[in-house]
Amino acid sequence: IDSKLPWVGTTIFTVMSKLAAECGAINLSQGFPDFQADRSLFDAVHQAMLDGRNQYAPMTGLPELRQAIAAKVQALYGTAYDAESEITVTAGATQALFTAIAAFAGPGDEVIVFAPVYDSYVPAIETVGAKAIYANLRYPDYKPDWNEVRALITPRTRMIIVNTPHNPTGSLLDAADLEALAELTRDTNIVVLGDEVYEHICFEGEHQSLARHPELAARSLIVSSFGKTYHITGWKIGYCYGAAALMAEFRKVHQFNVFTVHAPSQVGLAAFMADHSRHLQLAEFYRQKRDFFRQQLAGTKFELLPSRGTYFQLARYDAISDLPDTEFAQWLTREVGVAVIPVSVFYPDGRDDKVVRFCFAKQESTLAAAGEKLRGI
Amino acid sequence: IDSKLPWVGTTIFTVMSKLAAECGAINLSQGFPDFQADRSLFDAVHQAMLDGRNQYAPMTGLPELRQAIAAKVQALYGTAYDAESEITVTAGATQALFTAIAAFAGPGDEVIVFAPVYDSYVPAIETVGAKAIYANLRYPDYKPDWNEVRALITPRTRMIIVNTPHNPTGSLLDAADLEALAELTRDTNIVVLGDEVYEHICFEGEHQSLARHPELAARSLIVSSFGKTYHITGWKIGYCYGAAALMAEFRKVHQFNVFTVHAPSQVGLAAFMADHSRHLQLAEFYRQKRDFFRQQLAGTKFELLPSRGTYFQLARYDAISDLPDTEFAQWLTREVGVAVIPVSVFYPDGRDDKVVRFCFAKQESTLAAAGEKLRGI
Ligand SMILES: CSCCC(=O)C(=O)O
Ligand SMILES: CSCCC(=O)C(=O)O
Repeated sequence: IDSKLPWVGTTIFTVMSKLAAECGAINLSQGFPDFQADRSLFDAVHQAMLDGRNQYAPMTGLPELRQAIAAKVQALYGTAYDAESEITVTAGATQALFTAIAAFAGPGDEVIVFAPVYDSYVPAIETVGAKAIYANLRYPDYKPDWNEVRALITPRTRMIIVNTPHNPTGSLLDAADLEALAELTRDTNIVVLGDEVYEHICFEGEHQSLARHPELAARSLIVSSFGKTYHITGWKIGYCYGAAALMAEFRKVHQFNVFTVHAPSQVGLAAFMADHSRHLQLAEFYRQKRDFFRQQLAGTKFELLPSRGTYFQLARYDAISDLPDTEFAQWLTREVGVAVIPVSVFYPDGRDDKVVRFCFAKQESTLAAAGEKLRGI
Repeated sequence: IDSKLPWVGTTIFTVMSKLAAECGAINLSQGFPDFQADRSLFDAVHQAMLDGRNQYAPMTGLPELRQAIAAKVQALYGTAYDAESEITVTAGATQALFTAIAAFAGPGDEVIVFAPVYDSYVPAIETVGAKAIYANLRYPDYKPDWNEVRALITPRTRMIIVNTPHNPTGSLLDAADLEALAELTRDTNIVVLGDEVYEHICFEGEHQSLARHPELAARSLIVSSFGKTYHITGWKIGYCYGAAALMAEFRKVHQFNVFTVHAPSQVGLAAFMADHSRHLQLAEFYRQKRDFFRQQLAGTKFELLPSRGTYFQLARYDAISDLPDTEFAQWLTREVGVAVIPVSVFYPDGRDDKVVRFCFAKQESTLAAAGEKLRGI
């Protein structure tokens, strides 16, 4: 069989979670909580099923849910989005990102991404026949260099994808970054795609959403995730919002990619959002976990990098091992019993700074057990 | 904003369901049941949530669910598929179709489809930069002409998409069609994509799945839908199965399109499939509805075409009106109070045989109320 994507392997998250399960390792690789979500959400979904809300929701998402999203975005970032024409509920953030890329990029187009780059972006770009162009975020601060980006922009640049808080590095864009990006894309045809799935897990100041910058917001699509916010990564429900003209293009693809999203869950989420503002406590909730996990590693030879947002902690291990990070991650999983994600896989050239990623979205008991193993190295 | 897909509008199913809601019409347009699904399924999903099954399922789908699918396919079609390497759970059949197309077709490739063509296929083909080539299914029998198809095959043909039972026409492929398709694609690089979401709603003989034909099966991906089978179209869960080499390519895109599917629903569906063989009664269940609806229209000037499968009934209305079918569908919705789907929208040239599609996946009371309105024309 001729492969269209011969260079695409299995996502590192599947690879490491599988290895963790096989080895019985504590899984701090793939990002997901090991604690329970809110029962009232489960009951609301069950009730929606009993109420017969089991047929297709509207293609764009349940109106009540889109309204709740609009209200949240306005409250947090001060920008009004129209629930009818500017917000679409998606089958998770990954589908939103894929769909946004597919709606704008095609053969001959270039999409600028920042390495280390979340592993779904580039395969999505290549699946639709476009080309990924890499800017760099470099150890140890992982900040974008906007002059470098400026030099990468060509008449073929169709999209720039930014991710803040950033996975895997935990770095953040600040207001000056938004301004630089606005200036770079002014009077161009470039769409900015913002992966902001960790928007509520920002430990330093306020999350600088693209939605806060009116000029930038007008040419951006922004993606978020209920999975990260409500501890239900397995429900695979997220959303995308942006200016109506961009959203109209997004929906052209969305309707023929997944059409619409798990209806009873949308009913449950709409009710839950109306009753709760849990997202407002999320940063504090995860800050405690981050700090607890960092304490666990204090005194080890791991060099902890700053985690300014997300539920990930990077650590440099060069004082422990000379192994390449992919092999170190395997060794840590098999021999120490703690699974992690190697960061080199997110660079196009496999650049290896000897850094691995730990997920601290775990119960303290899990983090403590992992800490004990890691201290034993 | 430059549109990548300027010719793509909003799917007819969204357009007509919205119009039906606005006019308070009985909605026999978009295909979905208006009756309740099985409560034990809801309870199983709720229990899975309470049990904490709310984080990412494996990328390929829950193993128990894939095993249940493999057992069903083997029992019905006699072909063994490996649950580990040959079956993937998807966010509905639409996502499976989009993903299969995206995994194989790209710039320079041609994909053969049959018109009237389900409205997601061609936009999916064009989104990934490939070209749709149309073969014809023609009123009144809507059978493929394999000589026509043979003449359309070129070295660029990458895929042929077949749909049986066929939406919107209710026509079926028979064993001779499978043999002709096998012969046409022998010694080529062509992948056959089978949309078989109505596999359990076949009123004449047994459904001729591509899976029944070992040679064809070896170069096919087959898509099915829990939504159609268990009356839960809004859950958006389906699956794709096929030879391991094809499935490996499918998964390369699947993992970066949606990654994985609503976990607690997968748990619930796996338990439900283990306990029930409801799909075996589905044809009889819908045959009664079909016959009841046809009786409702007996004596009207609608000319009823055969409905050999699916939950759709085509009717020619040329004895009632000279309007083009898109306008007739609007008139029927607004003035008569019954929403339907015009069939011309599924032809690339808008070919209009004055045929509309009714969905009879409804309670008898709904079908009777629609019948009364339609008899009053
Ligand atoms: C889509 S599975 C991976 C979850 C995640 O975003 C991560 O671990 O980085
Ligand atoms: C995806 S919404 C349309 C449902 C359907 O398959 C149909 O009505 O034909």
